[in-house]
Amino acid sequence: MTNPTAAILIIGDEILSGRTRDSNMHHLARALSRAGIELVEARLVADRHEDIVAAVNDLRARVEQVFTSGGIGPTHDDITADAIAAAFGVSIGIREDARALLAAHYARIGSGFTAERQRMARIPEGAELIENPVTAAPGFSLGNVHVMAGVPAVFEAMVASLLPRLTGGRPILSQSWRVLRGEGEVAAPLAQLAKEYDDLSIGSYPFQHDGVFGTNVVVRGEEGARVAEAVTRLAALFPA
Amino acid sequence: MTNPTAAILIIGDEILSGRTRDSNMHHLARALSRAGIELVEARLVADRHEDIVAAVNDLRARVEQVFTSGGIGPTHDDITADAIAAAFGVSIGIREDARALLAAHYARIGSGFTAERQRMARIPEGAELIENPVTAAPGFSLGNVHVMAGVPAVFEAMVASLLPRLTGGRPILSQSWRVLRGEGEVAAPLAQLAKEYDDLSIGSYPFQHDGVFGTNVVVRGEEGARVAEAVTRLAALFPA
Repeated sequence: MTNPTAAILIIGDEILSGRTRDSNMHHLARALSRAGIELVEARLVADRHEDIVAAVNDLRARVEQVFTSGGIGPTHDDITADAIAAAFGVSIGIREDARALLAAHYARIGSGFTAERQRMARIPEGAELIENPVTAAPGFSLGNVHVMAGVPAVFEAMVASLLPRLTGGRPILSQSWRVLRGEGEVAAPLAQLAKEYDDLSIGSYPFQHDGVFGTNVVVRGEEGARVAEAVTRLAALFPA
Repeated sequence: MTNPTAAILIIGDEILSGRTRDSNMHHLARALSRAGIELVEARLVADRHEDIVAAVNDLRARVEQVFTSGGIGPTHDDITADAIAAAFGVSIGIREDARALLAAHYARIGSGFTAERQRMARIPEGAELIENPVTAAPGFSLGNVHVMAGVPAVFEAMVASLLPRLTGGRPILSQSWRVLRGEGEVAAPLAQLAKEYDDLSIGSYPFQHDGVFGTNVVVRGEEGARVAEAVTRLAALFPA
């Protein structure tokens, strides 16, 4: 496939400690798939400056777009913006347009615009803001790195603001076929089919639910007609 | 904290494409937390040989234990065992004890021990098997890398077989305190508290559910008395 490639970097102790279950990766994976951008890697790191800098620099050199989630709030463990500035070697400070957005938001909801909240207006030099219609505090894009909030409702709103800006490829289409046989029995014909349709990605995923064993075969590709053709072949090989 | 460090590497296209939501990372994060092993990074890569080799070699050099999930079944997209052998520069082939386990399992359930199923007995030279009480096909440990299945029921059974073998540290204890104020209002006293209790990890996680806004503050550490003390301080700062 020739679509643009992407990675997501999820920043925060709460997921690695097992306390919280991530949902942003799954949301972004689905949104990118529809936009024709291929998610090739996901990483989760703790709130540690050096770990964030190293992961951002590694990923931004290897994929076309990097999306981050988490660590841009007002508290002491929100260190993402500084780490991004360090990764790019640029300065960071309060930016007037971001500060104005936040000031207006807190005035509207009648809550104090504290010094800690003002920290959320600290944006690395040269970045472009990403709109946050939920809680005002903006994300930002610097080069090919797009920095967004960790709270799922805010993350999802930022993804919706950002994605139309990025150049996607053709949406990746996917169809699946459910086979009530174990992977070991479908493996040989499937390998043959994968060889014939090497422009597609054909994956097999075993399942067992309530004593029923089987294999879901998923065919993915950019050409709808080719995907449909491969699934027709599957249906003939393994009738329902 | 001085506990042993760990990383998890999740291998497979199905999660990056957004089709499936991972649950193994969350399961392992909780199990490691109880065992006193600190999960410092998680990565997800697609079923691509070079990507798996690169990720395994990067992670095993940086943390004490690496756990992998996925890609050890019988089909053409199951390439993890070969990638691990390549990462360590060792040979791989059918191993007699693994083959015997599988042969006995398929005889017992009355299903054919096909050539594809025999692939699951291919184990890198020098590895130790990890028991699979669910579907027999074993995982394996090679050096500090522990290779397990992607199907959640099997992954979880393998983690249960494996963890008692590894040397853990002290379990990491965690308590949380719910504050009905935004992060911006709790940030300053929280930063002060985090400075005083620098042997603990104090994280703050904003939430909004059904129009209620607030912040969950989570205190984690190895010393139960210290964690309790910090939470008592929190309760005094932000009464319920």
